[in-house]
Amino acid sequence: MAPLTGIYVPNLIPYDEQSRINEGELRRIISWLIENGVHGLYPNGSTGEFIRLSFEERLRVVEIIASETRGRVPILAGAAEANIDLVLQACKRYADLGCRAVSLTGPYYFKVSQDSIEHYFREIARQSPVDILVYNIPQFANEISLPVLNRLAQDCPRIIGTKDSSRDFPRFVNTLHQIKSQRPDFVVFTGTEEILLPSLMMGADGGTIATAGVVPEAILAIYNDFQSGNIANAKRIQFELLEVIGIMLTTGNFPDGFRAAAALRGFNFGKPRQTVSPREAESIALVRTKLACLLAASGVSEAATVCAAGGVQRTTVDSIVREVMRTLGTVK
Amino acid sequence: MAPLTGIYVPNLIPYDEQSRINEGELRRIISWLIENGVHGLYPNGSTGEFIRLSFEERLRVVEIIASETRGRVPILAGAAEANIDLVLQACKRYADLGCRAVSLTGPYYFKVSQDSIEHYFREIARQSPVDILVYNIPQFANEISLPVLNRLAQDCPRIIGTKDSSRDFPRFVNTLHQIKSQRPDFVVFTGTEEILLPSLMMGADGGTIATAGVVPEAILAIYNDFQSGNIANAKRIQFELLEVIGIMLTTGNFPDGFRAAAALRGFNFGKPRQTVSPREAESIALVRTKLACLLAASGVSEAATVCAAGGVQRTTVDSIVREVMRTLGTVK
Amino acid sequence: MAPLTGIYVPNLIPYDEQSRINEGELRRIISWLIENGVHGLYPNGSTGEFIRLSFEERLRVVEIIASETRGRVPILAGAAEANIDLVLQACKRYADLGCRAVSLTGPYYFKVSQDSIEHYFREIARQSPVDILVYNIPQFANEISLPVLNRLAQDCPRIIGTKDSSRDFPRFVNTLHQIKSQRPDFVVFTGTEEILLPSLMMGADGGTIATAGVVPEAILAIYNDFQSGNIANAKRIQFELLEVIGIMLTTGNFPDGFRAAAALRGFNFGKPRQTVSPREAESIALVRTKLACLLAASGVSEAATVCAAGGVQRTTVDSIVREVMRTLGTVK
Amino acid sequence: MAPLTGIYVPNLIPYDEQSRINEGELRRIISWLIENGVHGLYPNGSTGEFIRLSFEERLRVVEIIASETRGRVPILAGAAEANIDLVLQACKRYADLGCRAVSLTGPYYFKVSQDSIEHYFREIARQSPVDILVYNIPQFANEISLPVLNRLAQDCPRIIGTKDSSRDFPRFVNTLHQIKSQRPDFVVFTGTEEILLPSLMMGADGGTIATAGVVPEAILAIYNDFQSGNIANAKRIQFELLEVIGIMLTTGNFPDGFRAAAALRGFNFGKPRQTVSPREAESIALVRTKLACLLAASGVSEAATVCAAGGVQRTTVDSIVREVMRTLGTVK
Repeated sequence: MAPLTGIYVPNLIPYDEQSRINEGELRRIISWLIENGVHGLYPNGSTGEFIRLSFEERLRVVEIIASETRGRVPILAGAAEANIDLVLQACKRYADLGCRAVSLTGPYYFKVSQDSIEHYFREIARQSPVDILVYNIPQFANEISLPVLNRLAQDCPRIIGTKDSSRDFPRFVNTLHQIKSQRPDFVVFTGTEEILLPSLMMGADGGTIATAGVVPEAILAIYNDFQSGNIANAKRIQFELLEVIGIMLTTGNFPDGFRAAAALRGFNFGKPRQTVSPREAESIALVRTKLACLLAASGVSEAATVCAAGGVQRTTVDSIVREVMRTLGTVK
Repeated sequence: MAPLTGIYVPNLIPYDEQSRINEGELRRIISWLIENGVHGLYPNGSTGEFIRLSFEERLRVVEIIASETRGRVPILAGAAEANIDLVLQACKRYADLGCRAVSLTGPYYFKVSQDSIEHYFREIARQSPVDILVYNIPQFANEISLPVLNRLAQDCPRIIGTKDSSRDFPRFVNTLHQIKSQRPDFVVFTGTEEILLPSLMMGADGGTIATAGVVPEAILAIYNDFQSGNIANAKRIQFELLEVIGIMLTTGNFPDGFRAAAALRGFNFGKPRQTVSPREAESIALVRTKLACLLAASGVSEAATVCAAGGVQRTTVDSIVREVMRTLGTVK
Repeated sequence: MAPLTGIYVPNLIPYDEQSRINEGELRRIISWLIENGVHGLYPNGSTGEFIRLSFEERLRVVEIIASETRGRVPILAGAAEANIDLVLQACKRYADLGCRAVSLTGPYYFKVSQDSIEHYFREIARQSPVDILVYNIPQFANEISLPVLNRLAQDCPRIIGTKDSSRDFPRFVNTLHQIKSQRPDFVVFTGTEEILLPSLMMGADGGTIATAGVVPEAILAIYNDFQSGNIANAKRIQFELLEVIGIMLTTGNFPDGFRAAAALRGFNFGKPRQTVSPREAESIALVRTKLACLLAASGVSEAATVCAAGGVQRTTVDSIVREVMRTLGTVK
Repeated sequence: MAPLTGIYVPNLIPYDEQSRINEGELRRIISWLIENGVHGLYPNGSTGEFIRLSFEERLRVVEIIASETRGRVPILAGAAEANIDLVLQACKRYADLGCRAVSLTGPYYFKVSQDSIEHYFREIARQSPVDILVYNIPQFANEISLPVLNRLAQDCPRIIGTKDSSRDFPRFVNTLHQIKSQRPDFVVFTGTEEILLPSLMMGADGGTIATAGVVPEAILAIYNDFQSGNIANAKRIQFELLEVIGIMLTTGNFPDGFRAAAALRGFNFGKPRQTVSPREAESIALVRTKLACLLAASGVSEAATVCAAGGVQRTTVDSIVREVMRTLGTVK
């Protein structure tokens, strides 16, 4: 079995104008990523908006990607579902499709005790036909505490690693230390783009990095430079990407910023599942020029035209001023 | 159309021993509630664990309840789904089944801007064939801010009310004041059991009260005593229920405590969807006796036997002591 | 000893133009409040910005107020200090000045365990020469959990009540029920303006209500109407005040909004301790007109002139538009 | 002026049995730290419990430390006070005592807008006679947002750096990148012990590391090994310290765990300012053995005896079992 290392790309979902999954565009994106050298693919994560798809659509996304990938790179498939039965159905299907492993968040919506969460993962690990990465993202789902993760790692052969998107780096280094000292092959992936390099320097095996869906060249360069000991260059690129990452993370509703940036690479992401208000659409349009200029400066030639054409539209200023006047009116 | 007033019961879902929906028991519960005089039913809310069911199971739950109810009381159906298309599919189905209205949380999992949330509800309201209550539960899903709710109430005829489970009473009285002053028929329901009576006193139309699935007699007495001006008695009952409510809210993972209490009324809730660890199972068993004694003291005769048989089991003490010793071992 | 009941006014601190305590204006405010019939005074609370005064200034504030009050109404003095020794020094001084009781937050800044907090209050209660109200305000200081408060109430004669500003009404009714059922004379005050009336209806003894420093007439009317059974009128006034309260709570930094509103009663609050940026000063100026019109509509005649003179200044619009342009510039 | 680099030790305060500052022991600790080679001292930080001292005591702490240090190492003095006047008084005094710079948290207790916080620091920077480090610790005081910090760094010569204890490493690398690219001499210190090494690797100038008050040898080794390019050794030590750090951070109330550990180096920390319950005292005693063994394993010979004498006391087990029985009693 291929080890899980390197840069996995959390796959954005392109939709058509009716907000249905756009299979053709998804295949085009997957091919482009593989040709660019990414080490693996990661559908049905948060970036892949798994929560906004139906159960059937989540299965379909992995089918399309597996069919397009044809084993060229390993697939880590998100398998978070509403209950254990559905999780296991998804695990079975993804195993049949040849996925290398699945990634599983803690339960979401309700607050659930750590005791139940531990029991939940043990039960799934006992029955799953495929390897599991425990996906910690306390911003959106119940946190999986480090003591729980540690016990799962010691007891469950099926749980082969963790993907940590908590943005909590003290926890991350504790994870590396506590678990890898007992089980050196345990996979520790980061999902926090801004700190990919220090994560690698402290011993991470790689990461699921949404920015790699926008500039795979740059993220792979960080990883490869790190591997070959060219730390200074890796650091330079990591720092250079911070502004783009910051904009993508804060534009519209996640992952709208990543969709806007990836669109500059020539892909059509269509009508998003989450409603976008006219005001937000305007702000995304403004950011697009900014992103285009940053990407053009980083060598993404296809972004140069958008950058050059950019500039604040007069109509935008007008509409903002109108809003200011309206606000003042309500204050009076 | 029947106005939405009074006590609606958020319906717990009984499962069988394989954790499948137990239709027979669900019908028995619904009949018992209607016979006890509840004003309405509320499937697919948080108490109904909508998030742990599949899309098809959610539809099925409402079908069973509609079939058992046969129009005797109105049904408010939870219609929160993964995206607008699925929400509208659910709305259409619940309209066809004769539901009085649907209840809709804000989007969950991701943080979403208020601007997008407003747009989301406007879009659904524009297309829904059934009336909508905006369900605010910021503990679990994105908050719907009061300014957004206020604008929706002014602009969208389909949005006929709100169900507020935020536990934020200052917001609740502001909701009553701001919206009802403009649109007096706007329905304002509370979902916070401990403050049903003060909510009614300040002008609420009623509530979705999970405790009414355990002691419908008591919750209806609060409502009816309030209606007939017998405030002192309503207050006495509200206060008497606080201890039971507190225990139900804090036992196991929500809604385990409500399941344990409702089981004392003679229903079989089966194997829960969310895993329960052995330690939690023990703690629920301990609480069961306590609940039984409280309910027996409140006149629930069927709980008296469990209360009488109660007492801490020797094996429980032993297991806890063992755990203490284990903890100490790890400290050393 | 006078029982603690009714409306206590958390006293704003007027400063001079060097931001020193303005004794003359403080005396004028105190006299005005007493003449308006408030039941008690409450210096050194959050509204009194105790945290922005020095230890000596806090003592001085109570000295001035005690001297001006001359026993006409009871004083509840905030005695939260950096450590137990300083708390006890303050308690002794406030006892000597004839204060009826002191109010004590939990420790602030650090997170402290409930166990330590309980021990902290027990230690102070053992040594204090004056009665104590436990002041729960988890927004700013460590929460004092209800089980801890309950044990303190059962064990410590010196702890005679609680002042709850948590905005958590379920907790509030639980406090009333759990503690008053064991110790009926235990004082339960609310500090949440928007829900004064429902708090009284559920059994509160009164409240510390910052809005009473702005419109004592209105807050006293709620209390008196409630006492005399004129609930409908009390409710009308409570609702009418909600908009003013909302504006005061959200303007500038707390308690700037209350200062701006109280200034409309003819008091000079001087230069605030917390810096106010030019932009915030502008927004407070805008809100001042709005407050003046609301207060004028509620019968505060001295606010009518400010209301009439109001209207958005052209310079304000200009400055906001300039800022918009600047923002757009940074986006490009 | 000496540049601010390397390891600064946040100084714990030893008290006597009446909880007064123990000057002799404080001098002994300072000498020991300087002899061990630390690069600087940091009194009146969170570790120094500034919030639990009086204004006069905070000045006194810096006087003692300055007197004992006699210029051998630079002093960074915490100057957070209740208002700008007191901050400036403290700044003046610390300048007179020869401190290299002061460290300033954002305002605490109240939530304050970013706009006011920016204005607050600008005002202090304009008047301060001593250099300032902006101390970001959003767990306890208002966060200072990165855009605000960035503007302060560009505009205020007196603001020469930041000390970041937010535990937010993505923010930390953004701070390094955004500010140092404009002002390369801007000092960026970390206050997060677990990630000292990766902070250095990404460009931090050093840190204020409470663990350096317990094992200065080890923390200095991380810094020195990093400086000399011996990354592997620095990483080994950083990882080895994680368990001790974790225990110190979670034992009792902060900084009790650090006090218990530093006491193993032969210092007497006396009676803490924050009350310690009997149960917490017991848990600290248990942890003491564990810490002693970890420190002994790391080469701290004076901890070996405590480690050897350790082991769970029978009386401890008894008291815990008694508590279990009591808990069960309340459940019944």
